[in-house]
Amino acid sequence: MDCFDFYLPTRILFGAGKLDELARVALPGRKALIVTTGGQSVRKYGYLGRVIALLAQNGGVESVVFDKVLPNPVRSHVMEAAALCREHGCDFVVGLGGGSAIDSAKSIALMARNPGDYWDYVQGGSGLGRPVMNGALPVIAITTTAGTGTEADPWTVITHDDNQEKVGYGGDLLFPALSIVDPELMLTVPPRLTAYQGFDAFFHAAEGYIANIANPVSDMFALRSMRLIYDYLPTAVARGDDLEARTQVAMANTFAGIVESTSSCTSEHSLEHAMSGIAPDLPHGAGLIMISLAYFRHFARLIPERVTEMARNLGIDVDALPGADRPMAFVRALERMQKACGVDQLRMSEYGITPADFPRLAALARHAMGGLFSMDRAPLTDAAILQIFEESYK
Amino acid sequence: MDCFDFYLPTRILFGAGKLDELARVALPGRKALIVTTGGQSVRKYGYLGRVIALLAQNGGVESVVFDKVLPNPVRSHVMEAAALCREHGCDFVVGLGGGSAIDSAKSIALMARNPGDYWDYVQGGSGLGRPVMNGALPVIAITTTAGTGTEADPWTVITHDDNQEKVGYGGDLLFPALSIVDPELMLTVPPRLTAYQGFDAFFHAAEGYIANIANPVSDMFALRSMRLIYDYLPTAVARGDDLEARTQVAMANTFAGIVESTSSCTSEHSLEHAMSGIAPDLPHGAGLIMISLAYFRHFARLIPERVTEMARNLGIDVDALPGADRPMAFVRALERMQKACGVDQLRMSEYGITPADFPRLAALARHAMGGLFSMDRAPLTDAAILQIFEESYK
Repeated sequence: MDCFDFYLPTRILFGAGKLDELARVALPGRKALIVTTGGQSVRKYGYLGRVIALLAQNGGVESVVFDKVLPNPVRSHVMEAAALCREHGCDFVVGLGGGSAIDSAKSIALMARNPGDYWDYVQGGSGLGRPVMNGALPVIAITTTAGTGTEADPWTVITHDDNQEKVGYGGDLLFPALSIVDPELMLTVPPRLTAYQGFDAFFHAAEGYIANIANPVSDMFALRSMRLIYDYLPTAVARGDDLEARTQVAMANTFAGIVESTSSCTSEHSLEHAMSGIAPDLPHGAGLIMISLAYFRHFARLIPERVTEMARNLGIDVDALPGADRPMAFVRALERMQKACGVDQLRMSEYGITPADFPRLAALARHAMGGLFSMDRAPLTDAAILQIFEESYK
Repeated sequence: MDCFDFYLPTRILFGAGKLDELARVALPGRKALIVTTGGQSVRKYGYLGRVIALLAQNGGVESVVFDKVLPNPVRSHVMEAAALCREHGCDFVVGLGGGSAIDSAKSIALMARNPGDYWDYVQGGSGLGRPVMNGALPVIAITTTAGTGTEADPWTVITHDDNQEKVGYGGDLLFPALSIVDPELMLTVPPRLTAYQGFDAFFHAAEGYIANIANPVSDMFALRSMRLIYDYLPTAVARGDDLEARTQVAMANTFAGIVESTSSCTSEHSLEHAMSGIAPDLPHGAGLIMISLAYFRHFARLIPERVTEMARNLGIDVDALPGADRPMAFVRALERMQKACGVDQLRMSEYGITPADFPRLAALARHAMGGLFSMDRAPLTDAAILQIFEESYK
């Protein structure tokens, strides 16, 4: 019988031009720590300056900037920024950028209020999983990419500098208080990153749909998200300044974040986090694309009904196909979408991953993000993991 | 261009058997004021006793009961229960029952923390619209009917004892902290009430879909809600013990509540609240059913595209119809659903409303709930209001 638990306390302001509301919304304090990436894009396109100015317009809110965040953000930066936050007495943390900036903001908001090391609290890997006693500062997420959905979920992924563990962590405390998703800030994302991030969002929705805790609410957001990305991502990649395509992909991404709050990723994400854990230059979305055809081919055989529904939702007339072929229509659609976005030829060998790494990747996936395997509707054996990596290897 | 604001901080536990989680969830205090209706159903079926016992199991939380709530709840009871709440030092308010109990719980939670009279704060009618300075106690909503969606929205409708004003009021403070929607508690709702309440939920969704502030999130919930009610309400009315039908209708109702949180009702609700304001025995859902065919016929002419989409969503092959006939397919579907639920012969004359009342009803609708007229995509003139009442009169 249908049931669901729903909890999403984040206020989400979505739409072109919405960033300007930052000057008018109720803010959770008088001083902000703005967390952003070390790359130039948030400066080059003026986003950082705009955010500082809008906060100042909002009754003179002051800003302190931490701009060292790496594409795969690391534990040591979380600790450094949390110390900066305490030193300046910041009341809330603004994550400005993609998932790396916003995930960092969440983890920093936690460590600004709690003693010890971030790895004392994370669950998974060598994290000690200690209870959080002092809450977290409020987080405001301002997205400049469409990929992680972190603006609409309570999760953060941080890599340990020393041991390469890339661990997802989170809970109710880490929902952003406010998220602003303004597709105008995404017009300048380069084509390749647009594709990687869009596929990441697509897989959040697809995994959330095949997860064993999927429910009527997560299904609704997941199906809508997949359809929007299938329809609009190729245009967003080809013509980055198409605001309509950017808007639909951004909405799909936020919806996929809601899926992550109401359902869960599955083992595909564990496999990929292991890959980009040992190959830090590998973008997360690219890693997912590399293994996705083999992964969903595997689950198309195990849970054909759900995978067939995903194909139907993309507009494919599955009823006209022979029964056994219906779930595979989803895999073919995925392949077409990869071609349409120019990402069908990604090779893990280019990032230094070799078949000799596969057993280690399988072990790392279970060690660092083993929990997601329990979300699969059918158990993924070690043999199946190795087969997925082998089929995906180029 | 698509945009939306989303804010729904309520934790929603939905599904058969979910009431038992009340013994385990985190509660916002040690003493509850349970607000429920004067009718016998919550006692007869043991719901009140179960809630008191489950709260006690949850670390010994104590309960105080206020059980005078009327079907159209009144201001004087809000004030009386708020005084009781303060007197006993209750930490939170549990609304147990239908919309009347839960709406009362919200208003009581407000008045337990603020001075003066409830009508000092309400906006609309003769309410003074003063700002709320002291917040509100947390509210837990436990629904025993599927009609108002109040468990997933921040609204409450209370009638003034003296002047018959029936005013909707609310805001972020009045979202329930926790809502438990357990369809097992709805198995005993009599057929006629099941129909009235189900149609009320349907109109929350339909109005939210044609409202001028509808957006991609509210549309998704509205379309799903309407389809579930269209498919399952006749069964829930005919076989009240069908848990599957009850579950789907309950889900549709909660989704319609989310529509009320993300979009808005339109003038149909203003017209009906005026009707049941002057005819207190008229159930709200019955009043809506009475005027709905004329109301949606009117808007089918004004905004044919949106109304056609609602027909398509119900599974009607609108593309096979002549253009002008497509939006009217929705009105015919509504008529079929009324017949299938046995509520196509309701007469406002049986509740003492006569054509001589229509001008007064039109004026009262604008006076007490005028704000909803601004949510219509095309202005509803006084002449059109009178025509809707006249066409609806039996």
